[in-house]
Amino acid sequence: MKLRDVGEDRLLEQLLAKLRAGPGIVLGPGDDCALVDSGKRGLLDVLKTDCLVEGIHFAKSTAPELVGWKAMARPLSDFAAMSAVPQFALVTLIVPSDRELSWVKRLYRGIEKAARRFDVSVVGGETSDIGGPAVVSLSITGFVEKKRWVGRGGGQAGDDLFVTGRLGGTLRGQHLRFIPRIAESRWLTENFPVHAMMDLSDGLGTDLPRLARASGLGFEVDEAALPRNRGCTITQAISDGEDYELLFAISPKNSLSLLSRWPKEFPRFPLTRIGRLNRKSKIENRKFPQGYVHFQKR
Amino acid sequence: MKLRDVGEDRLLEQLLAKLRAGPGIVLGPGDDCALVDSGKRGLLDVLKTDCLVEGIHFAKSTAPELVGWKAMARPLSDFAAMSAVPQFALVTLIVPSDRELSWVKRLYRGIEKAARRFDVSVVGGETSDIGGPAVVSLSITGFVEKKRWVGRGGGQAGDDLFVTGRLGGTLRGQHLRFIPRIAESRWLTENFPVHAMMDLSDGLGTDLPRLARASGLGFEVDEAALPRNRGCTITQAISDGEDYELLFAISPKNSLSLLSRWPKEFPRFPLTRIGRLNRKSKIENRKFPQGYVHFQKR
Repeated sequence: MKLRDVGEDRLLEQLLAKLRAGPGIVLGPGDDCALVDSGKRGLLDVLKTDCLVEGIHFAKSTAPELVGWKAMARPLSDFAAMSAVPQFALVTLIVPSDRELSWVKRLYRGIEKAARRFDVSVVGGETSDIGGPAVVSLSITGFVEKKRWVGRGGGQAGDDLFVTGRLGGTLRGQHLRFIPRIAESRWLTENFPVHAMMDLSDGLGTDLPRLARASGLGFEVDEAALPRNRGCTITQAISDGEDYELLFAISPKNSLSLLSRWPKEFPRFPLTRIGRLNRKSKIENRKFPQGYVHFQKR
Repeated sequence: MKLRDVGEDRLLEQLLAKLRAGPGIVLGPGDDCALVDSGKRGLLDVLKTDCLVEGIHFAKSTAPELVGWKAMARPLSDFAAMSAVPQFALVTLIVPSDRELSWVKRLYRGIEKAARRFDVSVVGGETSDIGGPAVVSLSITGFVEKKRWVGRGGGQAGDDLFVTGRLGGTLRGQHLRFIPRIAESRWLTENFPVHAMMDLSDGLGTDLPRLARASGLGFEVDEAALPRNRGCTITQAISDGEDYELLFAISPKNSLSLLSRWPKEFPRFPLTRIGRLNRKSKIENRKFPQGYVHFQKR
């Protein structure tokens, strides 16, 4: 059996199934970041790694500054998903030796720009040659308050589902320039009990079922209510992927308060109630079209 | 200018030169691991990332279990170099989608075997397709006591230089099966003031000048004294690389005590005094043949 016949979720499930639950692991593989308790009072360490591969996640012709920005912004979006604060980054650059030095320097400029914007310090790096496409990998560590982290699995039946920003069409360029929603996420957990949260990297059609499954629930979505980028169909808003907006679940008793306070904190940045979590069987939710699936034939 | 004309050390220097020294960074890029102070009493966080690239660091025909072992063991060897204790790992697997699932599973088995042996918990993972060679990247976090970490830069003029184990010839297979010297390193710093230490990944001929340069010193080596693997010449012991033994500097007043206590703690595992740090100019040391240099034409 080839990898392409398996799919990323099932591959990781199979690989990680036999791992021991070691001491100090609060949240292991399967959520946006890993959480470990390493003895800081009231805080957990947050760990995340992410990679971009030339020819898969970006084109050789893509401006390298934008590749660098995205390489840093993607794992930072996972920090936003947990309501965590990033601090330190390790940068791995795997680049063929016939690549121009200027390409690598421009890539690094994009990484630094994102690091400055989100107050992350690059503390180490690794480089290697490759007889193939370039790879950029970022590993980020940081912290989150023990009482404040949000996973995918805490959703409750009846919770309202919200998304930040607008969905769809990001492959026209926005996926290289997106802003991790760390400020929004930290504000949310400072002011409301958020039951479950994730960032939309593979598209609502793939990611919402993941959140619902992690919470042991079904979901319903008011497709007409989905906030769409200009010129996007509902199907594109569901399936395009790479939105990097937040999807989260809160009790409906907090929804009105949230909707009234949000615009004062984040003017002109939309927050939309798109549906709710429910007890329906998973089978009914299969009708929801799928987003981007790694490894699988499209 | 192409990357191959630059060399890994100079590339990293150029990229990292402009990085700000952020809050909490005790040791940034340029040593075996990064050290950051994130508020644990008496302890520092230790961060390291490392990657293996098919066609560069291993062959497509290499047994994937051994590739997995090496992918974990290499960054663990950097933990040994700082006398640090590894705890948590993130695993990035970048593998072409036409690769057999069994290849990935066998690779993962090697990673797990090394993780169990050194008591490291795999807490997260990332996978991606690639239109080219496979890449395995490991990021590891752990801790070291503030009073116990050892960098490359603390060597003093007159210090004796020691290496563990035997050097040279590891490309005949040993480079896939080596044991990170964490136990030896922790014992050393528990019992002796170690001034400077690193692991020998690129060969003594490349790595010793790095340690000396970081300490602002020169060095002299008794080449006839170098502990060599069976059938290796002195030049091979200096230049082959991938030994993953410890190189360290301690005051000569501790050398006799070290040499007498070592064999009781680590029977049949050699420890050899190979030379000393001195105030000689760097120019004289240029005669020392170079080890493995990434990116450069060989």
